[in-house]
Amino acid sequence: MRIEAYFTTGEADQAQLAEATVVVIDVVRATTTIVEALANGARGIYPVVSTEEAVRLAQSLGREDTLLCGERRGRKVEGFDLGNSPAEFTSAAVGDKRLVMSTTNGTRAFNLARESPRVLACAFTNLGAVAAAVSDVEDLVILCAGREDRFCIADALCAGHFVARLLSDDGPKHELNDAALAAKSLASRKPTMRFLAGTAAGKALADIGLEEDLEICADVDRHDFVVEMLDQAIIRAGA
Amino acid sequence: MRIEAYFTTGEADQAQLAEATVVVIDVVRATTTIVEALANGARGIYPVVSTEEAVRLAQSLGREDTLLCGERRGRKVEGFDLGNSPAEFTSAAVGDKRLVMSTTNGTRAFNLARESPRVLACAFTNLGAVAAAVSDVEDLVILCAGREDRFCIADALCAGHFVARLLSDDGPKHELNDAALAAKSLASRKPTMRFLAGTAAGKALADIGLEEDLEICADVDRHDFVVEMLDQAIIRAGA
Repeated sequence: MRIEAYFTTGEADQAQLAEATVVVIDVVRATTTIVEALANGARGIYPVVSTEEAVRLAQSLGREDTLLCGERRGRKVEGFDLGNSPAEFTSAAVGDKRLVMSTTNGTRAFNLARESPRVLACAFTNLGAVAAAVSDVEDLVILCAGREDRFCIADALCAGHFVARLLSDDGPKHELNDAALAAKSLASRKPTMRFLAGTAAGKALADIGLEEDLEICADVDRHDFVVEMLDQAIIRAGA
Repeated sequence: MRIEAYFTTGEADQAQLAEATVVVIDVVRATTTIVEALANGARGIYPVVSTEEAVRLAQSLGREDTLLCGERRGRKVEGFDLGNSPAEFTSAAVGDKRLVMSTTNGTRAFNLARESPRVLACAFTNLGAVAAAVSDVEDLVILCAGREDRFCIADALCAGHFVARLLSDDGPKHELNDAALAAKSLASRKPTMRFLAGTAAGKALADIGLEEDLEICADVDRHDFVVEMLDQAIIRAGA
């Protein structure tokens, strides 16, 4: 398997993405929140770049069973139903609903991967399930959403644990690019809530009183299902 | 000390660079070559972005004691005196000469830092000297040149060993950004020639028969002097 990681979306080559299975990682918090929403019965998540687009799409999907979700500068967008805190996405809130979601970093990564033959969403919370699902692909791209186009250590650490799971496979030889090698080296660290709290993303959450979000973000293998983007929607695979 | 690392030049904020002491790292090969040239008596190195600019500047400096140096796709630019292999920059070749140098990644990093109050060039070969020279600054930016705007593990590893040296100091508390934290984690790895050979930059050198260059690139603390950019020229500090 060729494993290429990118720590920022700006580093990824769209032509290469179009040929590879892509695993999108945005640990704090978009992919964690998406996994949580799907675990709690949401029918699908529609990632969109702008809040205006979110409103338009929610109207065309049918506002009665569609929720508007997302954040700007970490906080819920004004007028939206939900923000981007995983714990908000309970069964009561999202069960059987469609979610239109716009977040600062994660949405951009999904958008960049839209031409790829297969796009999966990965967080610490579903790491093992996703790693098992891609163990036989030839070309894998791990696309970290990053933080405002900059390196984000939470995403890199998740990418590293993901690579480590793949390498523990008794499969054929793997070929890693520089970022995948570096991520793998990071994986000696455990993704504790305390660790995440010391990162830029963790500090920014603490600044707006949302540091509790990190508890779910750091909960490795909390769920055992794969999350996939099909057409425009991110859904629970096999559901 | 606030230590902010950037793994690619695209991630650095020019306004922030203008306020900080900047350490430029391009291990394979620009900063290694610059350190080697200055160790062997070169008077100064003028980094320029384009080869055309290199030719113009060499003419205005006086072609008789100025050498044209640099690479494109790793190979010496046609018509130039030297390429970018550290071992080419012997006393016989560069002693008492000015060098105008254009390389793919390193030059861009120096250019980006041109408004900074202090810019140093760091490679594994002068790591300790540079770390000692900046031990008392308040705002430090470690600017990795990267590889065609992408993460380069050789630069990240050098940044990591650099951060590790700074932290071993009994100085005041340090505040690290995500990339500096990640780089520090990498520093448990030794920068052997074998390690560098497995990176994208190392493989690209092997493809053009220049893998021997990695031997000097990996030679930690081979020299004990600081390299600084003053006005347009990179010189041996205190020389």
